[in-house]
Amino acid sequence: MNSTSIFLLCLIIGATLITILYVFYLYHKVGKIKISKKNVEDISGYIKEGAMAFLKREFKVIIPFIVAVALFLTILGFIPIFKTVEGIGWEGAIAFIVGASFSGLAGYIGMLSATKANARTTDAAHNSGMSSALRVAFSGGAVLGLSVVGLGLLGIAVLFLVFYYVYLGLGSTDITALAQASHVLTGYGLGCSMIALFDRVGGGIYTKAADVGADIVGKIEENIPEDDPRNPATIADNVGDNVGDVAGMGSDLCESHVGSIISCITLGILLVRKAVDSGSELNPSLIIFPLLIAGVGVIASLLSVVFIRLKEWKDPQKTLNIATYISTGLVAIATIILSLVYLKNGLAIGAVASGLVSGILVGKIAEYYTSSDFKGVKEVAKESETGDATNVISGLGLGMKSTLLTILALTGGIVISYLFLGNYGIGLAAVGMLSVAGATISVDAYGPISDNAGGIAAMAKLEPEVREITDKLDAVGNTTAAIGKGFCIGSATFTSLALFLSYSDAAKLFDNLGNANLNVLLPEVIVGLLLGAMLPYLFSSLVIGAVGRAANQMVIEVRRQFEEHPLILKGEEKPDYTRCVDISTKASLREMIFPGIVAVISPILVGFVLGEEGLGGMLIGALSSAIMLAIFMANAGGAWDNAKKYIEQGHFGGPGSKAHKAAITGDTVGDPLKDTAGPTMDILIKLMSVISLIMAPVFTAIPSLWELLINLF
Amino acid sequence: MNSTSIFLLCLIIGATLITILYVFYLYHKVGKIKISKKNVEDISGYIKEGAMAFLKREFKVIIPFIVAVALFLTILGFIPIFKTVEGIGWEGAIAFIVGASFSGLAGYIGMLSATKANARTTDAAHNSGMSSALRVAFSGGAVLGLSVVGLGLLGIAVLFLVFYYVYLGLGSTDITALAQASHVLTGYGLGCSMIALFDRVGGGIYTKAADVGADIVGKIEENIPEDDPRNPATIADNVGDNVGDVAGMGSDLCESHVGSIISCITLGILLVRKAVDSGSELNPSLIIFPLLIAGVGVIASLLSVVFIRLKEWKDPQKTLNIATYISTGLVAIATIILSLVYLKNGLAIGAVASGLVSGILVGKIAEYYTSSDFKGVKEVAKESETGDATNVISGLGLGMKSTLLTILALTGGIVISYLFLGNYGIGLAAVGMLSVAGATISVDAYGPISDNAGGIAAMAKLEPEVREITDKLDAVGNTTAAIGKGFCIGSATFTSLALFLSYSDAAKLFDNLGNANLNVLLPEVIVGLLLGAMLPYLFSSLVIGAVGRAANQMVIEVRRQFEEHPLILKGEEKPDYTRCVDISTKASLREMIFPGIVAVISPILVGFVLGEEGLGGMLIGALSSAIMLAIFMANAGGAWDNAKKYIEQGHFGGPGSKAHKAAITGDTVGDPLKDTAGPTMDILIKLMSVISLIMAPVFTAIPSLWELLINLF
Repeated sequence: MNSTSIFLLCLIIGATLITILYVFYLYHKVGKIKISKKNVEDISGYIKEGAMAFLKREFKVIIPFIVAVALFLTILGFIPIFKTVEGIGWEGAIAFIVGASFSGLAGYIGMLSATKANARTTDAAHNSGMSSALRVAFSGGAVLGLSVVGLGLLGIAVLFLVFYYVYLGLGSTDITALAQASHVLTGYGLGCSMIALFDRVGGGIYTKAADVGADIVGKIEENIPEDDPRNPATIADNVGDNVGDVAGMGSDLCESHVGSIISCITLGILLVRKAVDSGSELNPSLIIFPLLIAGVGVIASLLSVVFIRLKEWKDPQKTLNIATYISTGLVAIATIILSLVYLKNGLAIGAVASGLVSGILVGKIAEYYTSSDFKGVKEVAKESETGDATNVISGLGLGMKSTLLTILALTGGIVISYLFLGNYGIGLAAVGMLSVAGATISVDAYGPISDNAGGIAAMAKLEPEVREITDKLDAVGNTTAAIGKGFCIGSATFTSLALFLSYSDAAKLFDNLGNANLNVLLPEVIVGLLLGAMLPYLFSSLVIGAVGRAANQMVIEVRRQFEEHPLILKGEEKPDYTRCVDISTKASLREMIFPGIVAVISPILVGFVLGEEGLGGMLIGALSSAIMLAIFMANAGGAWDNAKKYIEQGHFGGPGSKAHKAAITGDTVGDPLKDTAGPTMDILIKLMSVISLIMAPVFTAIPSLWELLINLF
Repeated sequence: MNSTSIFLLCLIIGATLITILYVFYLYHKVGKIKISKKNVEDISGYIKEGAMAFLKREFKVIIPFIVAVALFLTILGFIPIFKTVEGIGWEGAIAFIVGASFSGLAGYIGMLSATKANARTTDAAHNSGMSSALRVAFSGGAVLGLSVVGLGLLGIAVLFLVFYYVYLGLGSTDITALAQASHVLTGYGLGCSMIALFDRVGGGIYTKAADVGADIVGKIEENIPEDDPRNPATIADNVGDNVGDVAGMGSDLCESHVGSIISCITLGILLVRKAVDSGSELNPSLIIFPLLIAGVGVIASLLSVVFIRLKEWKDPQKTLNIATYISTGLVAIATIILSLVYLKNGLAIGAVASGLVSGILVGKIAEYYTSSDFKGVKEVAKESETGDATNVISGLGLGMKSTLLTILALTGGIVISYLFLGNYGIGLAAVGMLSVAGATISVDAYGPISDNAGGIAAMAKLEPEVREITDKLDAVGNTTAAIGKGFCIGSATFTSLALFLSYSDAAKLFDNLGNANLNVLLPEVIVGLLLGAMLPYLFSSLVIGAVGRAANQMVIEVRRQFEEHPLILKGEEKPDYTRCVDISTKASLREMIFPGIVAVISPILVGFVLGEEGLGGMLIGALSSAIMLAIFMANAGGAWDNAKKYIEQGHFGGPGSKAHKAAITGDTVGDPLKDTAGPTMDILIKLMSVISLIMAPVFTAIPSLWELLINLF
């Protein structure tokens, strides 16, 4: 690297450090706000306690797991034939531990902040009204958003720089040292992926087990409203919003953010190496460029948060939109300057822009299919009039239909970014899309905080005006959640695709002329592709089953409390919230193990049995299948949810009507689809891609079972 | 071809002619049975009238369509650059018309026979009991089974022989004439595919529109039982069984049967050509061998039908199993002999056997997941106790889970058949699996005939003992339907895969060394793959929406009749069956046009935009996605259906309980999934494969939009 590049890397590290400092300032600022009402503080305390109990127990499971994987990577590095790249070995193990720690830390800070912000949002709504409540909720979310992107990028930049000098010191040439350092980063990506697996799958099971369990006994059997303090599962339900929608979502986008940068660096190095091999001039700026875009994105997100906090805002939807627009605008301007001045290649603008636009489009399409402002949700609501079955069918149909526009937006982004800069362009598009992740996560995390704030207002029996404010905040949160889910899917698609392209290089998938080639006419690739396409279905069925079992346990516990303590229902005895929190916590961590093993083992097994080509087939098969299921489940679930709310607003007979009953069925069916199975699809494909990327040299070094069989016949 | 091969081809033609003669004998035999009860004859007359009305109107739509496609193929043949292979041009057009006619004729005869056999089964149950009713129902189904395989193979063998001599006469060498003749056969496959599209999609919409419409007003609103003659839609419902489950299923397997043979011939020619090119000895038996296996299969099916008809049978399940076992056993023995004596290659035994076994396994797995004898369905039934939503969720989960074993069975078959004989082995496996289609279709078509027989018994108000017999026959029909659906999916997978491999040759997807290659790392292939994976979702949403709209029309009409003619509900006035039949007929034909266009246009559009590589990606993407959706929808739907029946047998509260209500919701959700969207997945992938195969030379000859863009940048 030349001195400019090193200077820029240091600048990036500086920018992330400033962002992290701001995160602590913001966190402290939110925590300092005094809560004026005692019962609000108490309820918030229960939620915080529950959330921390989950995190604590989760870390107890995660830490030995992280240690085991790190040991495995280190030991593998001692086996000579596996020691071909640096993702394996002690270097990869260190990066892996740093990645897991940073990602875990970001989720931890974010959740801590969310559980502080929720009650303070309620209190602000009570004391000073909308504008002030909005600021607290947004600030609480921004802590997660900024820590995810700040910590994520800090880790990459530091590790990259450190290991570059390590390998340079060990005698590598400049370009080799860069390549070796980039391989180490894969371990960092794996660390983030592991945390995402735990947070997204565990969190998804947690939140829906509590939600469904609370609803079945509370709403359906005992006819008490949502968020009623008499319901023993209500605290667990509110904890679930933090576990699933805050930590889970944050770790998901953290994985995408980190994965997109790492794979783009890898694709950049590939180009530079090719240039070196063919004797052309070295252009190392291709390698630093994705880091720069990500750095600009972090600063842009920081500035948008600071700007929003500077002013008083009335309209929450407008405010959140402005936050997104500011960061998008800043990234766009910076991209133009950096492309022309630093990279000296105007085509990069197009690649980054196609990712940015594609990400926005996918979110908007999700909004179109899941908002009651448009005809899709209205039709689902209308179909509720003829009963539960027609409601469910029309939701399924709508979700399936929504794949068309979403896929057109994604493939459009792929085509355009490729036309600009080839595979590297696709990597840049992923980085571009995720550069605004800081702002997107902030906006997204605002949703569960507002949701919690409303729950606390209900539980604390505050005035209806307070609930009115929190309801308005929450309604906007539903829109941002739909957009956010779309963004998660879109970013997972681009990141996995970039990882898949990096994998093909790591696994040495070349034809005789040395060009990248994965021949899908080979039977092992076809079989891998079919197995890959099946995995998302299997994985979905496992987590859906897990939610069902965990919810059942919750139902039994709530029923038990009501039976043994009849005073609870009369409001004269405090229910035992902790036991319900405990059930959700234990069940979610226990139930996530098997699906987690399936996700981790499948690529390794397929790699050994079908070889690196078969594994390549599996990755692309899983990618295509998982995206479709994720879009289908997220949008069907969102549509059912909002169709129910639309009916509750008085349409088609309003609350209590036959249509409403049918809509509740649809909403309940959609719950595990949109909040558990759907989001885990993103994790599944990214995790499998990262594992394959790390293990690629192993599968390349040894013959697969398939190769042995072929030689036998 | 040597004289042995020509002699064998003539033998095959002879065998199919004998089979067709037997079909006419059997058809005549069934029709000759006198119906003793006047009202049974009347009701049967309505159903037959309705079925014929559908076919007549369908042919009015089909014939201009067929003529248009034939003209298009002919005209295309005059454009010099497109005139590179013989699937395009007047030869392909002729083959196309013959294929459409033969497939249409088989469906027509089969449906005519089914509408005769249904009332005669009722009457036999009434007059002489189970054994005799079973024989009539089976014979009625066998007419469809034998005419589908007999006519299908006859067309292939005759066209192949005729065009071989035509091209030989025009001066081609022996192997070139064979290749040219095989290309013409693709047109024949397209003809079968077109009929399958109309019958499966139109039939699927018809049957569920009538079913759902009849149930909503009859069962739910007016509380009258199923198959009550007072319900104006009840005849349409029974017609639907014939249109969807007889003609639709028959045309689906006809397409698979024909497609598997054609693609295997193509793969055989490829091998022989390679041998010729490399100067090794020509082994033309590879080309004739798939035709021989298919011929043996036709005879084996014929013999199994004859054998079943020879004896008196008591247990319907056992009888149907025996029919399948006999034909499977005969094919297995003949395969061993033919492989060793004629092909002189024992490896072919393994390839054919892996197809046979894979087909049986997939059927058995479908039975496992959809029969109430096993725990899956029992769990879905149990989940009904907690309400509609949990029933629906558990059915969705079960359907998703069922993809695992099914895909393992299919990929196992692919791997083993490939290990034995490479791509040609995969083609042979497809032919092997479908060789028993004659018996499978016979067994499968027995189901809707028994279902109709039960309906007629109810409508004619016959004694409960009669209904008991038809119920027993029908119960077995449900099992065979599940197995049959599995078989349809499995055969569609193998056939599409074989067609895909043939496509790669037709589209000249080679690497620089002339080896078959489709590089999935190319962006146009990835984009094609993603678009392909999306299409089954889009297609499903379209047909699900179509069923909803058509059912709505039916509901309005039935309500109108009940309102304007109150005597109908009192049983004192005959409802207007014809109008309901008319609504289903018109709606299904109108609603199938748009999905049909999507299926036909998509591969052509993608071929022009992304080129032959992108189209290859689309085919494999669609294949993987469509199989998963088909398995998921078929098994979820089957499980819901049987969970409902299990509860009706008295479990979990029995009929009328809360669990029963929830199970009805699940069953209704499953109806359009398992009977409309699911089965059309098979058609979608086969049709797209055949169209791509035909159009391949066009896309190869001209540059795609993608290529133009790439050159621009």
